[in-house]
Amino acid sequence: MGRKSMREEIVAAGLDQFHSRGYHAAAVKDITDAAGVPKGSFYNHFGSKEDLAVVVLERYGESRRLQDLADTGVPPLDRLRAHFTFLRDDVIRHGYGRGCLYGNFGAEIADHIDAVRDAVGGSLDAWTALVAATLTEAQRTGAVRAGLDPATTAGFLVNAWEGTLIRARTDRSPAAFDNFFTTVFDTLLSPA
Amino acid sequence: MGRKSMREEIVAAGLDQFHSRGYHAAAVKDITDAAGVPKGSFYNHFGSKEDLAVVVLERYGESRRLQDLADTGVPPLDRLRAHFTFLRDDVIRHGYGRGCLYGNFGAEIADHIDAVRDAVGGSLDAWTALVAATLTEAQRTGAVRAGLDPATTAGFLVNAWEGTLIRARTDRSPAAFDNFFTTVFDTLLSPA
Repeated sequence: MGRKSMREEIVAAGLDQFHSRGYHAAAVKDITDAAGVPKGSFYNHFGSKEDLAVVVLERYGESRRLQDLADTGVPPLDRLRAHFTFLRDDVIRHGYGRGCLYGNFGAEIADHIDAVRDAVGGSLDAWTALVAATLTEAQRTGAVRAGLDPATTAGFLVNAWEGTLIRARTDRSPAAFDNFFTTVFDTLLSPA
Repeated sequence: MGRKSMREEIVAAGLDQFHSRGYHAAAVKDITDAAGVPKGSFYNHFGSKEDLAVVVLERYGESRRLQDLADTGVPPLDRLRAHFTFLRDDVIRHGYGRGCLYGNFGAEIADHIDAVRDAVGGSLDAWTALVAATLTEAQRTGAVRAGLDPATTAGFLVNAWEGTLIRARTDRSPAAFDNFFTTVFDTLLSPA
């Protein structure tokens, strides 16, 4: 494989730096240093650090395997559990140091930078819609409580997950994940 | 009332600046400017910005009316609902610009700064314990689903709330709060 383009190097380094350090803590110079490119080259590819943040959010979305939620070859509730299990394991694998870029940007900067706000909101909407469709399908098979509204519940679950990540990272412990899986799968969604 | 001490001015300005702008975005100079004190005076009172963050977290905790959760003059489930309603209304009143300082610090810096990590974790633990005690009391009165483990559920609820705040701030809309109240009070906790 050839060397990635300079723009791609910057996007990859931006994702890594924003994800591990946060938006404000990662300066443009940190990102270009990590990418191994001159700082001046940044502005040949991006109008601002904010512009890079929006591209990085798209790239991050592609790493989350959301398409697995739409794989109708797997029973819907199993898919949902596998989805959150994958996300949990990814956080643990990174030593609790990264969390979810949507939630990180949402907490740190979404209310200050409109372009990032829109990108975070759109990403969370798309994810929530996939979770809602999975819940609807699971209700049809009787695997999820009949009375739940899928859209309301999906919105709640995605938000609950983001908060769970904050706690897991703060504690550097899976206890918050355990609380999520137990409460969501054994009680909230359970048809019993 | 006399003028607050310089230290108090710095703590109040630090709470306001960290809460509205974030940890990294609020520089020591921003905080001393907001407090109306010389920048050099900061280090007469605090060893570092991190030290101020820990004091600010304590001060923030005092504003959250957690003692209302222990007011046994009010039925426990009503207390729990009133508690989250108070927290929601406070966010809306501030135009969705602040969120919860525990969650903000948890997402932005807790995994980088150990003293802040411990302070955030301890604050969330104390809050969770009060929610768990309220759930235990509500179970005794039959107002909350009997099968729930109060500690597990309380941990989940506090985390779900933090994630809900991120979404409400990102959207500048109460929709995420509506999802929380509906899912938690109409389904998760409901004894039906």
